[in-house]
Amino acid sequence: MSVDRHIPIRLGMVGGGAGAMIGNVHRIAARLDGQYDLVAGALSSDTERAAASAAAVGIGRSYGSFEQMAAEEAARKDGIEAVSVCTPNHLHFPVARAFLTKGIHVICDKPMTATLEQARELARIAAASDALFVLTHNYSAYPQIRQARAMIARGDLGAIRLVQVEYAQDWLTEDTDSKQAEWRGDPARAGAGGAIGDIGTHAFQLARFVTGMRPHRLAADLTSFVPGRRLDDNAHILLRYASGAKGMLWASQVAPGTENGLKLRVYGEKGGLEWAHETPETLWFTPFGQPTQKLRRGGPGNLVEGSRVPPGHPEGYLEGFANLYTEAAQAIRARQASRPIPDHLALPGIEDGLEGLCFIDACIRSSEADAAWVEVGI
Amino acid sequence: MSVDRHIPIRLGMVGGGAGAMIGNVHRIAARLDGQYDLVAGALSSDTERAAASAAAVGIGRSYGSFEQMAAEEAARKDGIEAVSVCTPNHLHFPVARAFLTKGIHVICDKPMTATLEQARELARIAAASDALFVLTHNYSAYPQIRQARAMIARGDLGAIRLVQVEYAQDWLTEDTDSKQAEWRGDPARAGAGGAIGDIGTHAFQLARFVTGMRPHRLAADLTSFVPGRRLDDNAHILLRYASGAKGMLWASQVAPGTENGLKLRVYGEKGGLEWAHETPETLWFTPFGQPTQKLRRGGPGNLVEGSRVPPGHPEGYLEGFANLYTEAAQAIRARQASRPIPDHLALPGIEDGLEGLCFIDACIRSSEADAAWVEVGI
Amino acid sequence: MSVDRHIPIRLGMVGGGAGAMIGNVHRIAARLDGQYDLVAGALSSDTERAAASAAAVGIGRSYGSFEQMAAEEAARKDGIEAVSVCTPNHLHFPVARAFLTKGIHVICDKPMTATLEQARELARIAAASDALFVLTHNYSAYPQIRQARAMIARGDLGAIRLVQVEYAQDWLTEDTDSKQAEWRGDPARAGAGGAIGDIGTHAFQLARFVTGMRPHRLAADLTSFVPGRRLDDNAHILLRYASGAKGMLWASQVAPGTENGLKLRVYGEKGGLEWAHETPETLWFTPFGQPTQKLRRGGPGNLVEGSRVPPGHPEGYLEGFANLYTEAAQAIRARQASRPIPDHLALPGIEDGLEGLCFIDACIRSSEADAAWVEVGI
Amino acid sequence: MSVDRHIPIRLGMVGGGAGAMIGNVHRIAARLDGQYDLVAGALSSDTERAAASAAAVGIGRSYGSFEQMAAEEAARKDGIEAVSVCTPNHLHFPVARAFLTKGIHVICDKPMTATLEQARELARIAAASDALFVLTHNYSAYPQIRQARAMIARGDLGAIRLVQVEYAQDWLTEDTDSKQAEWRGDPARAGAGGAIGDIGTHAFQLARFVTGMRPHRLAADLTSFVPGRRLDDNAHILLRYASGAKGMLWASQVAPGTENGLKLRVYGEKGGLEWAHETPETLWFTPFGQPTQKLRRGGPGNLVEGSRVPPGHPEGYLEGFANLYTEAAQAIRARQASRPIPDHLALPGIEDGLEGLCFIDACIRSSEADAAWVEVGI
Repeated sequence: MSVDRHIPIRLGMVGGGAGAMIGNVHRIAARLDGQYDLVAGALSSDTERAAASAAAVGIGRSYGSFEQMAAEEAARKDGIEAVSVCTPNHLHFPVARAFLTKGIHVICDKPMTATLEQARELARIAAASDALFVLTHNYSAYPQIRQARAMIARGDLGAIRLVQVEYAQDWLTEDTDSKQAEWRGDPARAGAGGAIGDIGTHAFQLARFVTGMRPHRLAADLTSFVPGRRLDDNAHILLRYASGAKGMLWASQVAPGTENGLKLRVYGEKGGLEWAHETPETLWFTPFGQPTQKLRRGGPGNLVEGSRVPPGHPEGYLEGFANLYTEAAQAIRARQASRPIPDHLALPGIEDGLEGLCFIDACIRSSEADAAWVEVGI
Repeated sequence: MSVDRHIPIRLGMVGGGAGAMIGNVHRIAARLDGQYDLVAGALSSDTERAAASAAAVGIGRSYGSFEQMAAEEAARKDGIEAVSVCTPNHLHFPVARAFLTKGIHVICDKPMTATLEQARELARIAAASDALFVLTHNYSAYPQIRQARAMIARGDLGAIRLVQVEYAQDWLTEDTDSKQAEWRGDPARAGAGGAIGDIGTHAFQLARFVTGMRPHRLAADLTSFVPGRRLDDNAHILLRYASGAKGMLWASQVAPGTENGLKLRVYGEKGGLEWAHETPETLWFTPFGQPTQKLRRGGPGNLVEGSRVPPGHPEGYLEGFANLYTEAAQAIRARQASRPIPDHLALPGIEDGLEGLCFIDACIRSSEADAAWVEVGI
Repeated sequence: MSVDRHIPIRLGMVGGGAGAMIGNVHRIAARLDGQYDLVAGALSSDTERAAASAAAVGIGRSYGSFEQMAAEEAARKDGIEAVSVCTPNHLHFPVARAFLTKGIHVICDKPMTATLEQARELARIAAASDALFVLTHNYSAYPQIRQARAMIARGDLGAIRLVQVEYAQDWLTEDTDSKQAEWRGDPARAGAGGAIGDIGTHAFQLARFVTGMRPHRLAADLTSFVPGRRLDDNAHILLRYASGAKGMLWASQVAPGTENGLKLRVYGEKGGLEWAHETPETLWFTPFGQPTQKLRRGGPGNLVEGSRVPPGHPEGYLEGFANLYTEAAQAIRARQASRPIPDHLALPGIEDGLEGLCFIDACIRSSEADAAWVEVGI
Repeated sequence: MSVDRHIPIRLGMVGGGAGAMIGNVHRIAARLDGQYDLVAGALSSDTERAAASAAAVGIGRSYGSFEQMAAEEAARKDGIEAVSVCTPNHLHFPVARAFLTKGIHVICDKPMTATLEQARELARIAAASDALFVLTHNYSAYPQIRQARAMIARGDLGAIRLVQVEYAQDWLTEDTDSKQAEWRGDPARAGAGGAIGDIGTHAFQLARFVTGMRPHRLAADLTSFVPGRRLDDNAHILLRYASGAKGMLWASQVAPGTENGLKLRVYGEKGGLEWAHETPETLWFTPFGQPTQKLRRGGPGNLVEGSRVPPGHPEGYLEGFANLYTEAAQAIRARQASRPIPDHLALPGIEDGLEGLCFIDACIRSSEADAAWVEVGI
């Protein structure tokens, strides 16, 4: 990834303490291209644990609360310029609000908030702030997903007819007491969506990002298969688009043998595209009536830039995540210099977060009405 | 495939004249294991074309109509013992009726009939006849599909939760004037279902066969994407089972880049299975928490018999089709000898045909009600 | 496969009695397109077993010896027109000689003979006979192998530089007392080659067929890994072509996890081709600097004819084998009518058999000289 | 990757200036787990270019020569503790020598030196130094390669019989004037090996690492296919091991359609393993007579540690490279604390580098003798 300048952005982190998988992912993503220095954190609501975690990952300034951190960092001359939000879902809103209102850029995990109301409120707050809000829908940062989007925008598929997207995992097949599972299964911390919030929003955003189309109606059949589970662990969803296109979305965390099986297929009047997360560097393209082509990250036929290594040297999840961080750095520097955000950046933001919450909300309304069609709304 | 004896069964054929893909498939399937002699046919409703087709494929006795053929063959001492029905859908019922009522075994293409009423009537006729009725749902005759069924029956997956089945093709992406497309697009000859009748019934039966479960409710969103097309070319369907299991079924003939993409995934409390028609000899099995296993036709872990060649020597579509014909021969010989039909045979029959028509009927009822849930019925 | 006329050719068979895998393969291949009637056989050297086997597979005339069969069938007005030779290798020569000298067409398993001397003698006999000799190198009859050959002949790869071919199996990983293994391990019946004769000749012929080039020198390192085995079960071979191209050939029967792993890769100045027997209907083509294309049997970009079913309906090993039989029928009918053998046929024959024996001979000479380079000769 | 402490190691870099692919790879690998601070560099032999490159990548202290850098950094209290060597091959020796003799740890690209004599000399120098020498054979740092090694060491395959390893690329198919290609094609800078030095050593080391066995003899057929090229662009090599095992090694840079196609297959008396760089997180394991298992990084059956993200979140080339850097940090810290190097580290070092040069030397001696067998030596 090319970069504007070599002086790293001062970064803070809320949540993501020791043992949190996603906190480490954010830290690696921030480090990978050398665009950030992680200098402050409120890694836990327990002050001592926060301090221990901060020391373990080499963070100099540790805070016992995000409110304190926002206040003090904003007051420092060498305070953080941006903050990563890696908490459980219910804290996304208050944390993002605290930093946005201080003019500190926010890089936030998805779903954006726990409720649709919070999402709408955060949209208002962000609109009133100079600070940027970036939502880490990392899957849309894979180069071959960007390639798919560019090809569809160019018209390679003609008018889109079908969108088949799925995201299947198996780690919740049985009742588990892992920390990861614990808060995700608690409506108070995860929000109203289980699988639809945790991974369904990724699938939704991926299809949205690649096709440029947002479904206006959906019918959702949500299920909790594991006894005692309070949120959905499987979602079967039908989609309709205003253009007449239709789609299916399947999100599941109880499908044994799948790992992190995000898959997108888009079919239009003139051709089809297929992509699977298991092999993220390959995009299959079939112009109708011609042989299927294997399009590789950085290889022939490439419409997007940004490769660190040549094709055949596999890049994966962390590099995709790092693409977001590095582009966020470019956006932050542009904003700091009062330059326009570069056109080629494709950073998910407030709008995507709001759409995600609308999606969750529509799924639940539909499912409560026995999978009746409902408007997705915005 | 092992066989009972070497004297071939005398076979007739209705439909399937020159240029008909499926007629040739039936003939190859009948020949492959040497269990049939094709001796009579009514290959076209045009007497001259019928005779020319019969001569071209080496059939000795050619008839100008199936009624005449049924009557005359039944009267001959060396008349046909069984008949293959390879006509467009609307003729399945009268042809099958004509032969069943003469005591001649029927091997019939799917869907069983053009309407649900005909299906019910044919069920009554078959029940009153000594002759067997075999429906060529050939995909359920793949050894690794049989393997999947045997594993689920044995409990390898525990209680089934999810059934994800799809059948995607691309040959109707554009308007086409092929003969294959022509009658399939005409409600008078194809029946009420387009893609759901032509390939959706295969997907439905495959899931039914493997899981042993029949969905009791469905919600279907049928679409005709190509202007002027009178029947659906895409179907998005949600399934519910009485057990609490749920499913998705996608059937499409407008998905560029897919060829004959039948795919089945079944997930239960204890494990998952995946199978794709593109590689029909491989079944992927994951016992939850253990490595995924690659189960191969004829290889280790095998629960079913019937391989002609060792693993690694690919068998395909025609061998699967031939499995049905060869097992039909075994069933016919058992019936002729007043022996019970062997237990290990897994031949689709009247019940499967009736279920297929119920499926089509339910899809249409649901789709006309804006994809509302409807009972599948029987 | 299109055919000339519907009157089947009268076929006999030598060897291939009950329990012989390859005899059943030949019978299925002969039946598949309806071009042959199997009417006579000498399926075993034991008269009673021969008769029992013949009855079991529906052969009317059973002989106790191939000499008697050749003599009597040649004398009958309705005698066989062609014979399939499915015996262990050491009998190929006397059997083929017996029928060729009677003017009966021969379809013979590979390797053509047990020794190079026999191969040379058989070439003289065939040259003096009106009868055709067809060698069942079935792998070169896969449509996508024909496609590869046609593309290379057209210049799609430019000048060939590299030929990487391999054929790996695992069934001889341990000492086995299977009937299949028994005669293959006996130099008196298999000839001087173990894995190189049984599967190495297939790999050699496949590369030869596709590239049109024959290596003039080779260096071979043959090994018998399993204690007590008298013939090679693994072969590592380097190849050199007069053009300057080079190659590697690996044949093994002791590679656990491989089944029937024939794989060919050819690279030229302008592009590359890859094909694997595990997915025989796909040919991967990369024009240098462009995306890799997935070329499918019967699909776009197709240069060869002969599909029975559309792409996506998998054809496999038996259909490939049947391609040879059906083309042999076309050649036989042309010869019977004193017409030239059609150009589009690509039947392996005496020349291929002779080259195969030269290959085995060269491998053994080289290996005995510590893998020194030797001339392949002809 | 777990780490000992959070204080980064002070790192320098020689070579790897702007535009050098491998320099950026080393920098990312060093950053990924936060174990290093890159503080000094001699990124080019041109002082001005060196300074510009250093500024561009955020290096504080830039030197115009590595000799100066070694001297001055060794003299500083806050001088570098380790140095990365990313120069063309011919400089590896003088650079490594300069730092090792100053007691600065060296992380060096492969091949270790340009000549075997240099390799032997460097081995002596390293033995006399307290500083560590780490050779970045990054492919052996993939978790599933470590898994393969652990399984073989545990005896899962029984005695090894066959080693099939290949490394195929296509970027030198045509004459190219890229900077990457330029020095690699110059014997004065690359050393005596072309493809064998650049990628053959990787393949050799990978097989060596996984099996624990070193071939004692080889026969090599080296070729330069592209006119004007002075070093080999293709290598066909036969291997023999003292145990009786045998192998094949193919290295090519003229195979269109391959990208970075490193592949390893190992077969023993009891089972087989297959791994391909295209899907580095999957290891295929077949216990003879049982179904093939798909072993995934971090998944069931795992014998090695060190995952950053769960299975299904693809890690790739940069993470593999980073594994080396992070383990090097662990080793450096152990050495600094006079603790033994932890047993679980699997860092390639001087011995591996020396073996690589012996491999290149043997290939050239063999190829000059018309691919005669030669001793590999040490």
